[in-house]
Amino acid sequence: MRIMNLVKSLEEADLDVYVVTREPNIFYYAGTIGEGLLIVSSESDPVLLAKKRDISIAQDQAIGCEVRSFSGQTEIKEITSVLRELSPEAIGFDELSLGHYRELGDNLDDVRLVEKSELVWKMRKVKDPKEQEMMREAGRLSDTGMDAIRNCIKDGIREHEIAAEASHAMLKDGAEDHGFPFIVASGPRSAYPHAGVSDRKIRRGDFVKIDMGASYRGYRSDNTRTFILGSPTEEQRKIYETVLEANEAALPEIKDGAAGMEVDKIARDIIESAGYGESFIHGLGHGVGLEIHEPPSLSRRSKDTLWVGNVVTNEPGIYLKGFGGVRIEDTVLVTPSGPECLTNFNRDLDAMRV
Amino acid sequence: MRIMNLVKSLEEADLDVYVVTREPNIFYYAGTIGEGLLIVSSESDPVLLAKKRDISIAQDQAIGCEVRSFSGQTEIKEITSVLRELSPEAIGFDELSLGHYRELGDNLDDVRLVEKSELVWKMRKVKDPKEQEMMREAGRLSDTGMDAIRNCIKDGIREHEIAAEASHAMLKDGAEDHGFPFIVASGPRSAYPHAGVSDRKIRRGDFVKIDMGASYRGYRSDNTRTFILGSPTEEQRKIYETVLEANEAALPEIKDGAAGMEVDKIARDIIESAGYGESFIHGLGHGVGLEIHEPPSLSRRSKDTLWVGNVVTNEPGIYLKGFGGVRIEDTVLVTPSGPECLTNFNRDLDAMRV
Repeated sequence: MRIMNLVKSLEEADLDVYVVTREPNIFYYAGTIGEGLLIVSSESDPVLLAKKRDISIAQDQAIGCEVRSFSGQTEIKEITSVLRELSPEAIGFDELSLGHYRELGDNLDDVRLVEKSELVWKMRKVKDPKEQEMMREAGRLSDTGMDAIRNCIKDGIREHEIAAEASHAMLKDGAEDHGFPFIVASGPRSAYPHAGVSDRKIRRGDFVKIDMGASYRGYRSDNTRTFILGSPTEEQRKIYETVLEANEAALPEIKDGAAGMEVDKIARDIIESAGYGESFIHGLGHGVGLEIHEPPSLSRRSKDTLWVGNVVTNEPGIYLKGFGGVRIEDTVLVTPSGPECLTNFNRDLDAMRV
Repeated sequence: MRIMNLVKSLEEADLDVYVVTREPNIFYYAGTIGEGLLIVSSESDPVLLAKKRDISIAQDQAIGCEVRSFSGQTEIKEITSVLRELSPEAIGFDELSLGHYRELGDNLDDVRLVEKSELVWKMRKVKDPKEQEMMREAGRLSDTGMDAIRNCIKDGIREHEIAAEASHAMLKDGAEDHGFPFIVASGPRSAYPHAGVSDRKIRRGDFVKIDMGASYRGYRSDNTRTFILGSPTEEQRKIYETVLEANEAALPEIKDGAAGMEVDKIARDIIESAGYGESFIHGLGHGVGLEIHEPPSLSRRSKDTLWVGNVVTNEPGIYLKGFGGVRIEDTVLVTPSGPECLTNFNRDLDAMRV
């Protein structure tokens, strides 16, 4: 059980107690949504201190821990009293705000408080078979969304109307929500890597860059395709083909034992050789799971190594201010036999022409 | 200009420099989306240090500040060097993580680092006329979503299919996204105040609690209605009418000068008198704006007072485990002449019967 693996990791980390505060981490360990604190130690059973509003769903859903509600004292008093019972010398946290650090420090003399998210990420970044199934389904759902976009995109449609069709298709097909806020960036706006959604009307000659994903039982997919309205110009074609080549070259390298920095370099070298090195202004990829940005990372400064069970994005891009931009992004699972692409909407330039 | 008001507030707060780190705050002050740091002081012009990925959109959108890109040094070195140029004795932050607090502290000897989000919230919680227009539109868009739900909800439809129709209607009509993740909680699940969306099929006799909102140019609405499939039982009717009475009694009290604690009490007293006091397990409301949860709050422990320009939710609820729950929530603007409800989908029990 996940929660017991966390307990087992405490000794090596030189911690007596660990407090899980972030909602996706509580969901990962205790299987329930909502706010609260999951308090874990080797000396006693795990306790989920649930916010009163969320006590009912926690009681029904939580596994592997005793569920208690805040009694109505101030939150910090309540946390302090639960922690004191465990007489710890060192407490780890997945996240510790400056305010909580000071308040808890004042209340728990001689206890070492340590922010140590690595303990959680070490587990979360390796997706188990059940998680992999959810991720596959999230990937499939974003393909459904891209299909809907392919079918609606046309001269004169507005960016938010495109998002409407994709959202409808994904949610109807089983997604509980988008994986993250949509990006629909058309024409000159496609040159912004992150651009949100506007009410701009799509016009012939536009790149239309769509970055979106689905959320399925908490797990996300992350998927970008760049459509072209009409026949691409020579430069549009060159940019598109370069990004596609980078995406395709990086994919087979997303495998067990690969260095995140090296995978990034393979894509970056191709874009640099084509003369667009300065225009690939972000890393090649990031982990995905219960959150849309997780470890490990694929980038020039990444110190991460990929292992079986990791899920990362593969998203090279070229962005030319005033002209437009292209990104082609997939969500990729590392399996023992190599990369498994979870997002499979056609990437060929011809398929992107509408 | 907003950014100059922030500069003016520094002296009273005994700060030389203020660093805005959170994205909604950067959007509020500089008018641009994306990650970065907005550095403000009385001694020199405001600087937006934009993440390289977001430099292009920042250059096009940002107002009232010089836009610079991180040069490629480590982020903390870059921030430190910009801050050092200003020779501050005290620097305020809207949010300061424990990690940044320590790293900056090591690099900036003898500088006082203070987390002081109040400076920002004091301004953000009073919506100016332009913001009020966006909030009105966000409210109108959530009414559109509720209309779509009214039209699709029926025996046998699944929760995620309901979310699909509402999402489609809101985005098509101009929303750039949902204001926050949907809640569609039917049958026994309606007893969870926060429940997400599942694939449960709606059945006759169910409460179907929908909590959703639209995002329009960054501004959110927050809106809950509880539908009933078929004829309500006596207890369903009593619960519904009690919550509606609480919502209607609180509304006129959401006015200039009202204490957040007192407004909560008006709704809470009604629910307690009906015998459901223990089942109203959250505060009456919270601020809404660029984020879905902001100050000021309406709750038993609130120390906030409402002023003209505040936007808060009015959301009493009753939740009975195993049976179901009802919440009726609106987004309300405080105007000089009293409350203006921004979400106006019909609340009457008869209108909620499908």
